[in-house]
Parts: sequence; structure tokens; C-alpha cells
Amino acid sequence: MSSIGPRAAKAHAAKTVKKLEGLAKDTLQMVKSGKNPHMSIPTRTLANVRFNQKSQVIELKGDKQKRYFFNVGQAKRFMQMFLVANACKELIGVDKTTSIRDLYYMTKHTLGESRQNTFEEQEESDPIIEDLEVTVDALREELNLFASNRGSLVGEVTLVDAGDVIDGRRMGSGGWSIPSIVEDNVIQFRKCDAKFILLVEKDAVWRRLNEDRFWKKHKCILVTGQGQPPRGVRRLCRRMTRELKLPMYVLVDNDPWGFYIYSVLKQGSINLAYESMRMAVPEARFIGLSSFDKEKFKLPNNVVIRMEDVDISRAKQMLSYPWFQRKEWQREIEHMVKSGAKLEIESLSNRGISFITEEYLPKKLKDRDWLA
Amino acid sequence: MSSIGPRAAKAHAAKTVKKLEGLAKDTLQMVKSGKNPHMSIPTRTLANVRFNQKSQVIELKGDKQKRYFFNVGQAKRFMQMFLVANACKELIGVDKTTSIRDLYYMTKHTLGESRQNTFEEQEESDPIIEDLEVTVDALREELNLFASNRGSLVGEVTLVDAGDVIDGRRMGSGGWSIPSIVEDNVIQFRKCDAKFILLVEKDAVWRRLNEDRFWKKHKCILVTGQGQPPRGVRRLCRRMTRELKLPMYVLVDNDPWGFYIYSVLKQGSINLAYESMRMAVPEARFIGLSSFDKEKFKLPNNVVIRMEDVDISRAKQMLSYPWFQRKEWQREIEHMVKSGAKLEIESLSNRGISFITEEYLPKKLKDRDWLA
Repeated sequence: MSSIGPRAAKAHAAKTVKKLEGLAKDTLQMVKSGKNPHMSIPTRTLANVRFNQKSQVIELKGDKQKRYFFNVGQAKRFMQMFLVANACKELIGVDKTTSIRDLYYMTKHTLGESRQNTFEEQEESDPIIEDLEVTVDALREELNLFASNRGSLVGEVTLVDAGDVIDGRRMGSGGWSIPSIVEDNVIQFRKCDAKFILLVEKDAVWRRLNEDRFWKKHKCILVTGQGQPPRGVRRLCRRMTRELKLPMYVLVDNDPWGFYIYSVLKQGSINLAYESMRMAVPEARFIGLSSFDKEKFKLPNNVVIRMEDVDISRAKQMLSYPWFQRKEWQREIEHMVKSGAKLEIESLSNRGISFITEEYLPKKLKDRDWLA
Repeated sequence: MSSIGPRAAKAHAAKTVKKLEGLAKDTLQMVKSGKNPHMSIPTRTLANVRFNQKSQVIELKGDKQKRYFFNVGQAKRFMQMFLVANACKELIGVDKTTSIRDLYYMTKHTLGESRQNTFEEQEESDPIIEDLEVTVDALREELNLFASNRGSLVGEVTLVDAGDVIDGRRMGSGGWSIPSIVEDNVIQFRKCDAKFILLVEKDAVWRRLNEDRFWKKHKCILVTGQGQPPRGVRRLCRRMTRELKLPMYVLVDNDPWGFYIYSVLKQGSINLAYESMRMAVPEARFIGLSSFDKEKFKLPNNVVIRMEDVDISRAKQMLSYPWFQRKEWQREIEHMVKSGAKLEIESLSNRGISFITEEYLPKKLKDRDWLA
């Protein structure tokens, strides 16, 4: 179990500032030595992405592209990079965080007497943030920037959030709202009695399990990301699996979208490969709903949803993904394709409102009936 | 200030059960006296909706339609109504809540040896829930059903959520996640030191204000509904304005969608007129962003977003809404149309990251610069 004090948090921030300053110093050096100033930005294209079999994570390969100051096509983005870096350095300096939308407005201004704006749209500043993240190797959360906020937590853990002690065992029906920035300068872990993390895709299912106090009986931390989990939820789960040494089980709908949510949690995504190293939870286990659960748990035919053509072709694609190559996963996906059936988690309610709490999950856990 | 104990909560639940039983008893009576069993359902059409000038709330008028058992076109929905009513009575009996998706699965089954299902899709069960709500005059939350969950709260209030004490002053950066069901059998209020409620449309703005501890300095309760506030947030705000006797200020983007969010909060919506009596907060005040704020707060031209044609026609429509007839609102909307400009709350960040906390809101509150 880990926890850091204000001193360690400051050290963390200082390290990020150093990375930003490094970018500036390197550039100054090039100016002084009469070179065309440039920076090397890791390339975020499919060709530069690979699935690392050993770490089980999607990651960037080593390709970089150079961006020059004296280049008509690159000068603006070169300037924008420093505008954003400077704003982030200021944010860290005053210990404030902000949204990427805010950052756009903060850094937007009209240049001198011209009609030229530093940024026209947020579509211009967002990729610059990504460029900066990969170039200086810092997550946007370490640059004090956040994206969207979603997700709730209850359960057998105490943590500190911005100095306030949050006891997950006493968070009522609502739970603690998981913030976007969960780095160790904001969130620290205290007393943990949990034996595992259960991440459920759907908010309504989270509510059912919280109302039934599933987390108390089974000693766990109950988390929902309300659909595809946002970055804050992913980072927090990763930190909890690492620092609290907890296994994590993922409960999603039995359809290709559910499998996709699980796979992004586990090994990251191709689009955001550069962050997978810091966001992925390769230890995550898929606990359900499995394509075999309909028979196993005697669900009636009328709760089945027929797969559409697009579902079928999506599932077939998944058969070729490197991270679904284990024979258990091939069997799972093939069964879905063959049966042409999808199942929502809520379909378990057909067997009784608390069937999921009292029968389904306990049996799955007892039988170690999951896929890794 | 109000708070209820478990006894009052039980009495509340018993009252709802009585309403459901009343529906069944009336029907039984008709069966016994040899009549064609029927129920009277308040009509949810535009023609049956009016804006009540006195209470400033959109409400249903008195029209009702009859639904008969012995009627080929109505028999199925008649049966479905009792299926749903029965499921809700069971939920209340075991003191459990569930989602409307779950309810669909709970009540779905195949009839006898036929191939006929009680419900084919959730699109069938959702309107039946609405029918039941208006017929027995109980919100779905009182029937132990919930819709989506969104929204966070921090600030100068202590409340009890499902038996756990939640201190809004110690909820860290994440806040307390506002549940979908906030009726007084789940949520009770305790110590309140707040002077007002501030509801902000955008999560990112809520975060800025929380990080700056705006709620502490200005003694308020800070709430976000993350866009159009869900039912739980609306009900909670209504309860707080009533039971804690607090004024409420609403901060939204300066565009027709922002105005719409404000107006639904304040007087309800036409689509869900039947619930406005229980969800609307007619005391809500619009604190910003006003179309006049650009000049008042010296925002540069480059943060303005041009209105699209659809925005202009939406704003023009609003000029004729009965709840925007006061001259201050006419002036506000006309200025928006004339300038053709929209402003996001985040545009204030152009004047500094904490401009909203340190300048904008304090000035607005001090000058009593709002619209009612």
C-alpha cells in the first residue's frame, strides 16, 4: 500500500516542470548554436503502434517526426506547442487544474496587430496537447489538464482526495464521484480492506450492487465508469491494482462493444497507444457476461437480443486481434458469432432483482470462471 | 430544515403502495359489478399542457383518457400496466430500487404456451411507467425506479444518504455523486451553513470552482448536472430550495441551449409536464452567462462563437415562450439575436484561470445581476 505526502506531490510536479523546461532549453540551445530550432515528436500513427506480447499492452514504437520553426507548414504548430507548454507550466506553478476546453480559451489570443489568432478552434489545441504529452512523456493529468469526469466508487477502501479523507464504506447510495485527475498529488490511498476491484460497465448495475452492499459481503471496491470508462477511472484502477496489489474483474454486456470496453481497459487502444503504458491494466480479468452464461444461468430465450450484421462483423474482426488470440477468447467470441445472440447485464434481472448479487457474481468468483 | 427518520420513510413508502393498491381495488370493483374494467389516465399531449402563470410551472391540465380491458387495441397495455404496478409494489416491499431497463427485463416473459411476450422492447415498458406515474400520481422515484445518474455536489451542507453521513465540506476534488433517487426515504438533510445553491451546467466549471473552494468563501452548495441536469439533480435542488430555504442560481453557457437548460430547471418541460409540479424550481435565477457579459467583463472578440442559423431561429422561438415574457428576458434574448454571438462559460478563462471565481461570480452576486 502506498501513500505520498505533500512533499512527494511537490517533487512529482517539479519533475513534470523539469520536462517542460527541458523542451525549452533544448530549443534555446539550437537557437544559440545557429541551428533551425526543432523538436522530435513520437509519431501517433497505426504504423508506429504495436502490441507488446510481454507486457500485454498496446504501445508506441520508436518512430519520431521532426517539427521545425523555420518551416512555413510547421511554424504555427511549433509556436502553439510552446504556448500550451507555457500554460501548463503556469498551471502547475499555481497548483491549479483545468479542462482542455479552458486551456484553449486561456491560450487563444490575437497576434499583435494581425487578424491571426493563436488558435482558431479547440480542434487545433487538442492535438497539440497530445503532441506535448508524447514529446515530454507526461500524461495530460500530470500537465494539470483534465478531460471529462464520470464514474463512481464505493467499497472497502479509504483514500485522501485533495486533503479530504474519503471512506468508501460510508458513501451512501451515490458514492464518491471519481475525478478526472487521480494522480498521486491529488489522490492517496489509506486503509484498504478490499480483496479485489469490480469494475462494472453500467451505472444501473453498480447501483444494484451498491444497494445490496455487495462490496461489504465480498470485500471489494465497486467502480463504474458509466460506459466506456474515462481516463480518471482507468488511471485510478491502474493505480489501485498496482499500489494496493488488487486483482480487478470487469463486468460488461455480452456484445462486441462490451468486449471492446474490456480490451481498452486491459491493453489500451490503438488511437491512444502513447498513453497505454500509463493507463492500461493488463491484469484485468473478464468476469462476464460470457456468451456461455445464457445456458449456465438458465436465462430464457426472450431476453436475448439478436446480433445485427454490424455486430457479427465486429465480432469476427475481434477474432484476429492479437490480444484475443488465446484459445479461451477464440472460443468465447466464436460462440457469440455462432449463436448470433447478445445479452445485457440487466437480463440477469429476469431471474430476480438481486440474482446478480446473490447468485451470478458469487458463483463466478467461486468457480474462478473468468477470462484473462 | 427538515430531516426524516426511518419511520417517516416507511410511511412515505406505505402511501405509494396504497396508491398502487387503489388502482387494483378500483379495477376489482368494476369486475365484481360486471363493468368493463378500465382506468383513467391523464393525457400527456401538448393540448393538455399549460403554463401556470401563478406557480410559474408548466403543468398538465385535467384531460384524461380511458383504457379498457375488453378492447382489442387496449387490452395489452391494460395488462402491462398491472405487470409494472405489481413489480413496483414488490420493489417497494423489499426496499430495493432498480433501473427502468431492469424493470423491462423483470416484467418480460412469454405468455403461457404462446409466442407472445409481455413486452417486446423497452420502448413498450417506458411509456407504461409514465402512464402509471400520472395515473397514481407518484414519481417513478417513488415507485423505486431510476433513470440515469449524473452530477456532483460539494459545499456547506451535511446530508444523510442511505444511512451514511455525507459532509459536503469534505468531499475532495471529486465530490459526492448525486444518486438518481433522492426522495426523503433515501436522502435527509442535516447541518446546512449554505446561503445559496449554485448550479453550474458544466462539469469543468464545477471543478474550477471546487478547486478554488468557491463554496467555502461564499458559503454555498455547488452542484453540477453535467449538461442538462438529470432528474435526481433537479429533485435534489428542488428539495434543497424548499426544505433548506435556499435561493438557487444557475450558470449556463450563453446560447439557446443554455437558456433551455435554465428554463427546464425553472418551470419544467412540455414533454414531461406531468412531473414539473414535483421537479421544477420556479425560484431559480439565471446568473449567467448573459449576452451583455461580453462588454461588462471585457471579453475579447476572439472568444465569441458565431450563432448558426439554427441557433438564431431557436432564440427567436424563445421570444414567444410564455415564461420568457418579462421585459428583462426579452431584452436578453433580443440582444443575443442581434449580436449573433454565443459565449461559453469557459471563455471567461481568457481573462485568467480563476477570473470566474475571483471576479465574475462575486461581482454578479454583489450587484444582484441576475434574471428571474
